[in-house]
Amino acid sequence: MSKKKTTHKKASTRHIKTGKSPGTVTYLGSREGAKSVVNIMEYNQQDIHESTIDVYAPSNFNKIIDHIKTPSISWINIIGISDEKFIENLGNAFALNPLSTEDAVNTHQRPKIDEYDNYIFGTFKMLYLDENNVLVAEHVAIVLMENMVLVLQEMPDDVFKSVRERARTKTGRIRTKKADYLFFTLLDAIIDNYFVVLENVNHKIDLLEEEVYDNPRPETAHAIQELKKEILKIRRFIYPVKELINKLIDSEHVLISDDTKIFLRDTMDHCTEINDSLNILREMSMSLMEMYMSNISNKMNEVMKVLTIMATIFIPLTFIVGVYGMNFQYIPELQYHNGYFYVWGLMIAIFIGLLFYFKKKGWL
Amino acid sequence: MSKKKTTHKKASTRHIKTGKSPGTVTYLGSREGAKSVVNIMEYNQQDIHESTIDVYAPSNFNKIIDHIKTPSISWINIIGISDEKFIENLGNAFALNPLSTEDAVNTHQRPKIDEYDNYIFGTFKMLYLDENNVLVAEHVAIVLMENMVLVLQEMPDDVFKSVRERARTKTGRIRTKKADYLFFTLLDAIIDNYFVVLENVNHKIDLLEEEVYDNPRPETAHAIQELKKEILKIRRFIYPVKELINKLIDSEHVLISDDTKIFLRDTMDHCTEINDSLNILREMSMSLMEMYMSNISNKMNEVMKVLTIMATIFIPLTFIVGVYGMNFQYIPELQYHNGYFYVWGLMIAIFIGLLFYFKKKGWL
Amino acid sequence: MSKKKTTHKKASTRHIKTGKSPGTVTYLGSREGAKSVVNIMEYNQQDIHESTIDVYAPSNFNKIIDHIKTPSISWINIIGISDEKFIENLGNAFALNPLSTEDAVNTHQRPKIDEYDNYIFGTFKMLYLDENNVLVAEHVAIVLMENMVLVLQEMPDDVFKSVRERARTKTGRIRTKKADYLFFTLLDAIIDNYFVVLENVNHKIDLLEEEVYDNPRPETAHAIQELKKEILKIRRFIYPVKELINKLIDSEHVLISDDTKIFLRDTMDHCTEINDSLNILREMSMSLMEMYMSNISNKMNEVMKVLTIMATIFIPLTFIVGVYGMNFQYIPELQYHNGYFYVWGLMIAIFIGLLFYFKKKGWL
Amino acid sequence: MSKKKTTHKKASTRHIKTGKSPGTVTYLGSREGAKSVVNIMEYNQQDIHESTIDVYAPSNFNKIIDHIKTPSISWINIIGISDEKFIENLGNAFALNPLSTEDAVNTHQRPKIDEYDNYIFGTFKMLYLDENNVLVAEHVAIVLMENMVLVLQEMPDDVFKSVRERARTKTGRIRTKKADYLFFTLLDAIIDNYFVVLENVNHKIDLLEEEVYDNPRPETAHAIQELKKEILKIRRFIYPVKELINKLIDSEHVLISDDTKIFLRDTMDHCTEINDSLNILREMSMSLMEMYMSNISNKMNEVMKVLTIMATIFIPLTFIVGVYGMNFQYIPELQYHNGYFYVWGLMIAIFIGLLFYFKKKGWL
Amino acid sequence: MSKKKTTHKKASTRHIKTGKSPGTVTYLGSREGAKSVVNIMEYNQQDIHESTIDVYAPSNFNKIIDHIKTPSISWINIIGISDEKFIENLGNAFALNPLSTEDAVNTHQRPKIDEYDNYIFGTFKMLYLDENNVLVAEHVAIVLMENMVLVLQEMPDDVFKSVRERARTKTGRIRTKKADYLFFTLLDAIIDNYFVVLENVNHKIDLLEEEVYDNPRPETAHAIQELKKEILKIRRFIYPVKELINKLIDSEHVLISDDTKIFLRDTMDHCTEINDSLNILREMSMSLMEMYMSNISNKMNEVMKVLTIMATIFIPLTFIVGVYGMNFQYIPELQYHNGYFYVWGLMIAIFIGLLFYFKKKGWL
Repeated sequence: MSKKKTTHKKASTRHIKTGKSPGTVTYLGSREGAKSVVNIMEYNQQDIHESTIDVYAPSNFNKIIDHIKTPSISWINIIGISDEKFIENLGNAFALNPLSTEDAVNTHQRPKIDEYDNYIFGTFKMLYLDENNVLVAEHVAIVLMENMVLVLQEMPDDVFKSVRERARTKTGRIRTKKADYLFFTLLDAIIDNYFVVLENVNHKIDLLEEEVYDNPRPETAHAIQELKKEILKIRRFIYPVKELINKLIDSEHVLISDDTKIFLRDTMDHCTEINDSLNILREMSMSLMEMYMSNISNKMNEVMKVLTIMATIFIPLTFIVGVYGMNFQYIPELQYHNGYFYVWGLMIAIFIGLLFYFKKKGWL
Repeated sequence: MSKKKTTHKKASTRHIKTGKSPGTVTYLGSREGAKSVVNIMEYNQQDIHESTIDVYAPSNFNKIIDHIKTPSISWINIIGISDEKFIENLGNAFALNPLSTEDAVNTHQRPKIDEYDNYIFGTFKMLYLDENNVLVAEHVAIVLMENMVLVLQEMPDDVFKSVRERARTKTGRIRTKKADYLFFTLLDAIIDNYFVVLENVNHKIDLLEEEVYDNPRPETAHAIQELKKEILKIRRFIYPVKELINKLIDSEHVLISDDTKIFLRDTMDHCTEINDSLNILREMSMSLMEMYMSNISNKMNEVMKVLTIMATIFIPLTFIVGVYGMNFQYIPELQYHNGYFYVWGLMIAIFIGLLFYFKKKGWL
Repeated sequence: MSKKKTTHKKASTRHIKTGKSPGTVTYLGSREGAKSVVNIMEYNQQDIHESTIDVYAPSNFNKIIDHIKTPSISWINIIGISDEKFIENLGNAFALNPLSTEDAVNTHQRPKIDEYDNYIFGTFKMLYLDENNVLVAEHVAIVLMENMVLVLQEMPDDVFKSVRERARTKTGRIRTKKADYLFFTLLDAIIDNYFVVLENVNHKIDLLEEEVYDNPRPETAHAIQELKKEILKIRRFIYPVKELINKLIDSEHVLISDDTKIFLRDTMDHCTEINDSLNILREMSMSLMEMYMSNISNKMNEVMKVLTIMATIFIPLTFIVGVYGMNFQYIPELQYHNGYFYVWGLMIAIFIGLLFYFKKKGWL
Repeated sequence: MSKKKTTHKKASTRHIKTGKSPGTVTYLGSREGAKSVVNIMEYNQQDIHESTIDVYAPSNFNKIIDHIKTPSISWINIIGISDEKFIENLGNAFALNPLSTEDAVNTHQRPKIDEYDNYIFGTFKMLYLDENNVLVAEHVAIVLMENMVLVLQEMPDDVFKSVRERARTKTGRIRTKKADYLFFTLLDAIIDNYFVVLENVNHKIDLLEEEVYDNPRPETAHAIQELKKEILKIRRFIYPVKELINKLIDSEHVLISDDTKIFLRDTMDHCTEINDSLNILREMSMSLMEMYMSNISNKMNEVMKVLTIMATIFIPLTFIVGVYGMNFQYIPELQYHNGYFYVWGLMIAIFIGLLFYFKKKGWL
Repeated sequence: MSKKKTTHKKASTRHIKTGKSPGTVTYLGSREGAKSVVNIMEYNQQDIHESTIDVYAPSNFNKIIDHIKTPSISWINIIGISDEKFIENLGNAFALNPLSTEDAVNTHQRPKIDEYDNYIFGTFKMLYLDENNVLVAEHVAIVLMENMVLVLQEMPDDVFKSVRERARTKTGRIRTKKADYLFFTLLDAIIDNYFVVLENVNHKIDLLEEEVYDNPRPETAHAIQELKKEILKIRRFIYPVKELINKLIDSEHVLISDDTKIFLRDTMDHCTEINDSLNILREMSMSLMEMYMSNISNKMNEVMKVLTIMATIFIPLTFIVGVYGMNFQYIPELQYHNGYFYVWGLMIAIFIGLLFYFKKKGWL
């Protein structure tokens, strides 16, 4: 139900967008009217400083911008991207191309990575299961600049929590590396979560498979189709990522160090694995439908067999009793004293004969 | 119905075309005999001037041609392309290759972009839904020359209205840019509309899906097949566009500035998204048919079950009553005073036993 | 029938060919024993001269060869290629590689273009519908030499008639161009005709579609399979052409001018369109079969419903009348004066109840 | 039956091979224990000399090796490759890489061409139909050295007979060319024979198609599946050859002259044709199964129709006669003198009415 | 059952891994808590020395590391990789990149080969059948360093036994070659075993095929689906290997000599053969399902035929006996002395007529 609504929503918002000039910053998501919150984490090998800024208080806007000049690494995390005006100002302050700012809030944007002279811009889908185990696809944009990573996301982060933790505890590599390593780490956190999502799909397939074998109902077919659609949707979000990372590895951009590229190679391996899994899940979901159809056929066969056995046994017997129900003046058998029992004998013989026949056919 | 006619029309016109010399300007569409109307919008950063020219009035033809020499940007929009003579003259006046002029009026032409020394020629399909929600595929040709964009289309424009608006209001980027930006904007407007068309297909799939689940009829299968054909048709018009734009981005043609290429990259992203959607819609439409077949099988199963249950219950009972309808002289049971009621008891026992059996089988 | 024979013929001729040395000129078609006729059209911008030469008259052979030396363009058209000796002599006289001569008469040859130092050799399939609307695939070889185009075909030409016409009337570009333009024009004429053939296939699909919806019979399935085979066959002849032309465009061969390449680009566009259409026709023919199966299932469903309704209504009624046909001494109901009418009442009630049940199920 | 055994044989021999050092010469075929026979044909433009050498006679081994030094072309044909020791010695004498010698007797080896400094090694599958029309896939290895071609095959040659003939008669090109031309000719002879094999498959498809239309039985489905497996098997042997020849054409190896490459181009054309045919045969075999299923459905439909017509006609009639078999004291109709005939009239009317109904439904 | 558990295990361990820093050494397999055992084989052309080291005894750790400096070839085989701390130390001692060490114990890692300046790292799946004929996929990592090959595997080796044997006996090439040849030999041993696994799959397909023809049950369909899943799983482990080896052949890494590349080419041939086989097995498993469905349909057809024959024969006969069971006062036939026998005659005639009809239909 809710899915259908989203689909229609998408259509209409797209419709509204049609006719606007390219580069117009237009939020297309479903969380309109929410204020933006800005979390900043600034760190170098020695120190780390975290703060939350209310950007709607006067002069606070500049507090964000000031991080451009500092030599330590800043991770600026913006939660809530429906305030188009604020995002546009931010984009201008960080000298982003209007097309980037537009993509940052365009929740329908396909995953992409664009390289500009002074920054690298990427948007991805953060996929996770919410508390009701429903798949959420959250739009997230990550901008890598010199000494700074700007993240724009729709909801308070979940997937990035572990990265934040590792930065704080000084144990991981994050604190000793440049901004490109932070960029990689965030990307890696997003992609790592794809495994969880795929595992959930795998689990659904297992459940449906059991249902198909034990009790295939029309609802089962419906659920299989819904699953196939979900896989198509996930695929659309996940599939392009591998190529993007490959492009990043081949890139000559100054902001990406060779050192980080080794880690990106590892991430690309994960992407390959994810895409392999996606293909396997796809094939398995298609096999499910095939299995469902074959089980329906088997059920039908069973129904037909019961009917055929019953009918084949009783139709000739009913014919026989009909014969001796006729009112002809002269039916010799009717005169025999034990005729009735002879007929029963005949019928039992036929009954047993047919049982043997069905046994031989393997129908019993 | 009307679709079939178009198909046949196409065949016959193609037939007529066969045997003509390449470069012969031949209109192949269905709006023959219509006169051409020319709208001209000339602008630079300061001024904008719009005019409509009756090209059939003497000396007006030159009014169009004169725009070649002006330094400001001219958008020459020709509506109605069935006047082959006029179009041919126009092509010659603008020094177009005869092959380009031919393609401009060849409504069966596949989307293409050809680069010549002095101009870039592109034809596309403008897809939109008319007032009856029927898909219209309008042939449009766009020629980019120095300081000039020439548009040839079949019907008064719809999709370009917003571009015109933005040019007038001076708010967009159009007025500050060269002709290549106008060329891009028109292309972008066409492609943006593809989203609306795909959304409409998506909506149709949703409706058909509901029908398949609730009430699958032979008409449903027919509608699914029609939808698949429509998707094939749209695909044919939309699919090649991505590659064309990619070629344009890689092109070294002087008429395309690097600045505009950044915008074209964005358009290509949209094309990728559109092609992804097309593939998903295709798969979904194929799943629909599969779903339909599985529901038909389920219905059949249900019918068979009713038959089997009825027959299996009543066939043995009918046999029993047949037995006691026989006319043998000596049937002991018939003599029992309560024989009739004993038989009823037996039959009720059989009836209940079979109900239990069916219950256990899960058929009830 | 006739198709099967051709297939077997092919096999056996292939068999005969097996074991011969490569370059052996062996005619493999079905029009053996026919004499060759040679039509020559020699032209330049001013003059045009047509003649038919009886090559079996003495010294006439040299008349053909003499055209090598003339500066004006010669189009030498050979009709009938089963005279292997004559073709071999001709090939030698024109200094063709024996492999080319072999391919020229090998009617099973796949479309190909081979470039040699002094000539370009191509073989294609000329596809057209004969007077009985049956698809004919005629083998044709076209050799481009300096100032000369040599055409070898099996039957008097049909597809090339319009080219001949255009050359005569001086209106087209042919007379003003070199031999490579003539080569292109002939190619273009062949490919243009593919549209007609595809349109015919499209028409057949429309007819079969109607049949599938209105009256699907086993013959319909047969016809669909035959159509699929025909599409496979056409595809085999048409599909490779695009790549060949592409190769020609990329070629550096002196005999192909840049000017002609622009026209070849246009032809390649047509090939792309044809291949697209072929793919769509293929998909549509596959959908037909799917549609057929779904309609067969629907028909079966309908049959089952009629059986089930009839059986379900009358089986319990027949049971009831059986009950009162029993011969027990004491059946109280039989004594009631109106018992017969009560039973009718009961049966009518059951009848109506079951009708309502079926109505509710949507089976009526 | 025999096929299954071969499959298991393959498995076990593979098993035995596992664990051996690479380059170990191990015969894996089914003709173990056979002695090798060596036929030698030495020729130049003037002379030709043929001999058969018994390699097990002392000092005869060197007679083979001596051909290395002669300037005329030697075609050394070894029949029977199960004598591993002999083959290994031979490989060493001709300075072959142990991997080549291993591949020469490894009858499971996929088609391959390996280039070494001093020779080119190729293995192929010689496919032909034996006297019982059963497909035989014979392993053959061909080694091209300077002035020498070494052929290793399992059985006395069949496919190469025509090459031998042509070499003897001096009419073909073989005698005037170098060893690489002989190498090409042998390859060409193998590939030419693939056409015969494919034609046989085509013929089987025709027969099965007839069977599917006329009398589809479970055995038919079985035969279709067997055919599909045979096509898969053939495909595995034939498919890689095209690419191998392409590699040979692109090769810079001194042993392959440019002249021979022109002939190889022709052979590659044949390979393309063969691969096209294979794809078409594959699609046709898949269509067969689809066709089979649709005909089974049609048969079922027919069965159901007969049942439904019979049941629908007689069930109501049987009900009626049941009504008048009831033993109620008072059934008015039974008293009518012509009641019996009225009932017959009613039943005939119902019978005719139902016939009309079925006629209208198109079931008769 | 156990499979499902493994799948869930995988999911959960993945889950636990999510959020860790890249390069963290985390064992993800099912053999936790096992101690590592180290077997070392050090050899050169003359000598060979084998030892087993208890790494948990003090100072023994250095005994492993010392092999770095020796000029003879060391094969260090570590069995048991669940002791993360030990593996991490080892990785550091051998100067492995943390990402490599992580992959070495990550049992979910896809096959990969990574080149670093000082070593080449590869992980593969060792596939074999355990004593219960169940497929085991064991994770193995092989590191090629100068004069040393480090192998990390989960269980005592099986597949490598023959390599060890060959090294000991001095007969193979191993002892005369460098470490890269050992690396190749191990790889070759792993890949050779894939043939055995595929053969086992092939055997399962044969068995299922027989079952499908003789006695298709719902369990058969289930088994086919399980087989398809197994093929998907194997495919995932085997498929990438070919490309990896290809990369290795193209690599310029100093540790791989040209000599070894010739052997790797041979291994790649095997990979090609394996991938071909995989594709064929895949197609065959898909055909199995198709075959199963067609046999189910055939069975249903047979059931329907029996029902239809029985019903069609006895329904009219039962009608006839019903007619003469009616109680009309005046039914002329009942008065005939031989009426009963006439009716029997009629019924036998109908019976025979229907038998002929079914015979003609081919149903008997």
